Amino acid sequence: MSTCFYTASSLDGFIATPDDSLDWLLNQDIDENGPMAYPGFIADVGALAMGATTYEWVMEHENGEWTYDQPTWVFTHRDLRPPQHGDVRLVQGDVRRVHAEMTAVAEGRDIWIVGGGELAGQFADAGLLDEVWVQFAPVTLGAGAPLLPRRLDLELIDVARNRAFACTRYRVLHDAQGRDAA
Amino acid sequence: MSTCFYTASSLDGFIATPDDSLDWLLNQDIDENGPMAYPGFIADVGALAMGATTYEWVMEHENGEWTYDQPTWVFTHRDLRPPQHGDVRLVQGDVRRVHAEMTAVAEGRDIWIVGGGELAGQFADAGLLDEVWVQFAPVTLGAGAPLLPRRLDLELIDVARNRAFACTRYRVLHDAQGRDAA
Repeated sequence: MSTCFYTASSLDGFIATPDDSLDWLLNQDIDENGPMAYPGFIADVGALAMGATTYEWVMEHENGEWTYDQPTWVFTHRDLRPPQHGDVRLVQGDVRRVHAEMTAVAEGRDIWIVGGGELAGQFADAGLLDEVWVQFAPVTLGAGAPLLPRRLDLELIDVARNRAFACTRYRVLHDAQGRDAA
Repeated sequence: MSTCFYTASSLDGFIATPDDSLDWLLNQDIDENGPMAYPGFIADVGALAMGATTYEWVMEHENGEWTYDQPTWVFTHRDLRPPQHGDVRLVQGDVRRVHAEMTAVAEGRDIWIVGGGELAGQFADAGLLDEVWVQFAPVTLGAGAPLLPRRLDLELIDVARNRAFACTRYRVLHDAQGRDAA
């Protein structure tokens, strides 16, 4: 099992505009059965983690319906309302403790760090981030939410084109302090 | 002939660290005869443009020796010293006038915008940027000099792996104001 940050990004490393819009992304062409596409990825995922901004975007975008089958941990200091249906657990603090819980629940399946970049960075800081998957949309934004605000060395596993997207997959080698990754 | 911004970048959209280092890039493995590599690109280039920071980096890195055969326009407000040997032209102001000059001198060969991102953005603003080539190094930096600080729509032409690098090539479709590119 792996803990993966799987995300789309603009070519210049932003995962959302400064006002948290994904309009630049959602109108792009992708083959859902193509390389590194979402259905194949999510099929192996047993637990999700996301930050408060990502959670609020999902809730607004899906009109308050929770669409994930897997247990989801939402890291937040905000007063969020969980959805009526779905396994959503609001948490705070150290990612290590939560990661242990997620690992137990995922039962050998992968853990998906949905976003944002800062949360993925916290998992990397703790040596708990194994892989980074980035699908680059054919857009530059010039500003916005940063992809992964850390100094990390990675190893390229795979590159592929999926219609409008340049898809990449990396193994996390070690963080800025030179510690080995999990 | 095309005007191309051809550059390497970290995965998170930085072309240099905050202190203008490329150490994270220069130790990466690449096949100089592989896809989208430099020798194949530079062979078709007839003129170069770069900003002052890029120029100073090149001069320092090459111990004051100028290594480009092609005429090079350096956009600067600084008091730069041109190299002893080599065709280096210090310019200021509107990229349109300079681009016309470069086009005449390039005689049908491509124009390479070496960097930085802001200069490439100025060519894009003027509708004069045709292509963006980015070779992503397997690294996140978290901060640094931005790849291309503009809102641009692109079209993916090509994706390839070259050893450690995920290499991408794009056509510029139009800029943030919706104007058509050149």
